[in-house]
Amino acid sequence: MTCAPGTGGIEGAIATIRTPLRRTTIAQALAAMGEFPVRRAGTQRVDLDTAEGRILGQEVTAAQDVPAFARSMVDGYAVIASDVRGASRHEPATLTLAGEVAMGKATLLTLRHGEAIAVPTGGALPVGTTGIIKIEDTKKDAERVFVYDADDCDDRITQPASDVRAGERLFARGTCLSPAATGLLAAIGVAEVTVYRMPSVAVLVTGDELVPAGEPLGPGQIHETNGIAVRAALAAMGFAPRRYPLVADRREALARSFERALSECDAVIISGGSSVGLRDHTPAVIAQAGQPGVIVHGVRAKPGRPVVLAMIGDQPVIGLPGNPVSALVMLEALAKPILLRMFDRHDDPLPVRARLEQAIVADAELEHRIAVQLVAGSDGPVARPLLGSSSQLHILAHADAIVIVPEGSGGLASGSLVDALPLSRTRSIR
Amino acid sequence: MTCAPGTGGIEGAIATIRTPLRRTTIAQALAAMGEFPVRRAGTQRVDLDTAEGRILGQEVTAAQDVPAFARSMVDGYAVIASDVRGASRHEPATLTLAGEVAMGKATLLTLRHGEAIAVPTGGALPVGTTGIIKIEDTKKDAERVFVYDADDCDDRITQPASDVRAGERLFARGTCLSPAATGLLAAIGVAEVTVYRMPSVAVLVTGDELVPAGEPLGPGQIHETNGIAVRAALAAMGFAPRRYPLVADRREALARSFERALSECDAVIISGGSSVGLRDHTPAVIAQAGQPGVIVHGVRAKPGRPVVLAMIGDQPVIGLPGNPVSALVMLEALAKPILLRMFDRHDDPLPVRARLEQAIVADAELEHRIAVQLVAGSDGPVARPLLGSSSQLHILAHADAIVIVPEGSGGLASGSLVDALPLSRTRSIR
Repeated sequence: MTCAPGTGGIEGAIATIRTPLRRTTIAQALAAMGEFPVRRAGTQRVDLDTAEGRILGQEVTAAQDVPAFARSMVDGYAVIASDVRGASRHEPATLTLAGEVAMGKATLLTLRHGEAIAVPTGGALPVGTTGIIKIEDTKKDAERVFVYDADDCDDRITQPASDVRAGERLFARGTCLSPAATGLLAAIGVAEVTVYRMPSVAVLVTGDELVPAGEPLGPGQIHETNGIAVRAALAAMGFAPRRYPLVADRREALARSFERALSECDAVIISGGSSVGLRDHTPAVIAQAGQPGVIVHGVRAKPGRPVVLAMIGDQPVIGLPGNPVSALVMLEALAKPILLRMFDRHDDPLPVRARLEQAIVADAELEHRIAVQLVAGSDGPVARPLLGSSSQLHILAHADAIVIVPEGSGGLASGSLVDALPLSRTRSIR
Repeated sequence: MTCAPGTGGIEGAIATIRTPLRRTTIAQALAAMGEFPVRRAGTQRVDLDTAEGRILGQEVTAAQDVPAFARSMVDGYAVIASDVRGASRHEPATLTLAGEVAMGKATLLTLRHGEAIAVPTGGALPVGTTGIIKIEDTKKDAERVFVYDADDCDDRITQPASDVRAGERLFARGTCLSPAATGLLAAIGVAEVTVYRMPSVAVLVTGDELVPAGEPLGPGQIHETNGIAVRAALAAMGFAPRRYPLVADRREALARSFERALSECDAVIISGGSSVGLRDHTPAVIAQAGQPGVIVHGVRAKPGRPVVLAMIGDQPVIGLPGNPVSALVMLEALAKPILLRMFDRHDDPLPVRARLEQAIVADAELEHRIAVQLVAGSDGPVARPLLGSSSQLHILAHADAIVIVPEGSGGLASGSLVDALPLSRTRSIR
């Protein structure tokens, strides 16, 4: 998914394209877009408190050992293991109490044969320590410590650098930081990291019939849904979506809004106007805006068909169908992998291997994408198809994932194992 | 996971507890906490633009049909189906062009036999329409439309209420809103919804050896990691975490900080001081703060052992081990399901059914939680164990999920199917 070698960058890539590819498969469409270099997201420094979910814009190498010193895993006594070997309740080992390690302080103590030094969990060990006796396996008086069990005493030492060694490469550039990863960054002494900026993605919606959410409908009008849903999905994917005012189905209006979006954002998504009707100005407006222009117009997939994939310079432009289900499903299938290239990543979600709860019948001429709910079954996850037409947004609104029915298959049998691709969302609580 | 019937609320529940349960299983610990009523999250109104990922605090019922009127699925001509039945290239049907539907406008047109009216995709259909002919299956002159193919013309009408019917219950209270769900809310005329407030969860960290992220370490000191990582995980789970300044291992200092956190937040997490050592003030401080106090102290699980689960009034309090791996794993296993009860939810994540890449050996006395990476295999997901000690945060920092090795099993065989529980995170890009 990087610029093809030897094509000489964008000029070479432009030279390879003459007319837009029509009715390609999804895979062909992505491959065609992959020939063009894409603007890379810039980077920024963020505090660890806001780093979770962000994508590393740097490789991270440890500058220091973790831990930097030998530590005790338990509350107890530092000992020399050979002094206490075989100690038992019947034959306790007797050691001289030679001091105490203070938590979080330097220890200047050195352990000598016959001595025990009290250590708290996590405390730095005295020089010479080779074992630690748990406090519950001891008794003590003012000067002596009696050891009743010394088994495994050498397993209770956290050795220096046993978690991280200075110079070790911890995270590659492009790693999406998890909660534990932010903790590990803190452990190696980091307070802020370089992450990729969230690329700004313009969301343009065109359609004379559309009315903003909450406003009253006139006859023949419907509420605008794609701007709301596409914006939410982009944010869940890690982008910074920016909605533009609704655009009428007039070419000049769309061209003006598109030019503005191109100049203000890193990528542009246009919902609506992507087909070949009289009111479908999206392909022409994109074509006029710059080179290389429209790369793919229409995909052989359902939902999907009227999709436009384009590049204006290094800016990806994706024209989604006005139909909300088609728009969201194509956003996942096409826009997401294209836009993730701005992070130098391609989309490679781990599918959920699930058993199909009922058969899916689909015409064999197209690749189909079916919305499913994922539910727990006795034998692992079950994919429950939500069947209906692609104009039914309520189906997608209750779906967890998408199952692909391959072109030529005609459907999938009930009980077959399928790879369900989870829909992007910020979090899921059942 | 609600208050046991007949116990008379919190007083009854308090009466049932005398001394904290010790060394219970995780399941027993959750069941014990489930006996106590938990503070419910309040609600707030949010705009659809910020509703994704939030949890509905209301049931949503559609106030209107979607769509409210019959619409065309294609650009073409509205017809009466019986007028064009059997039309073909050889024997086209000829209709009189009787007008055009404007997009997003009321149509006052009525279709009569022998007539065709031009309609755009999504346009409102004239009264009497029973079929739509695709524009590519027609030709027209100034007054007439010639129909060359009328097959399936009655399948191109989106019927009123075919997506949503007025009065239909769309979402239950407690639904976590997906991108498509926000779109569907817009479609039914909603501009803002009632969601649960994100409950505030205090994050208190105690430990004399701890130094804030980025500050230089003295001898015997380590960087504080749990506040950073626990905060990030809570945010990923949908809570509003609030970090408090580091607390020294002194009982009065911890008590002061804890009282303040209790008064300012809905729930409190204390990292560190949860064991039974001299410096472990967490259980005593909680016990002194109010009723019912400590419910569980210590669980029979690894990582896990020194965990404190408590209730002060209706506020959950969870004491996590200072060890960062134990803290994060117990946050997932115990704190998450307890805190989700504030949304009137319990945690029920869909596990990933995966094949274990190598055998895990574990002592049979405890339930073990093993960090795994999930990778794609030819036969579905593969769980790759990240073996090491529970003091190695770098292991959890590279993990995707947790696999439970049941108590008594002694381990899991290589190649066995396991249920991997994904770790909470805002998003995952591989």
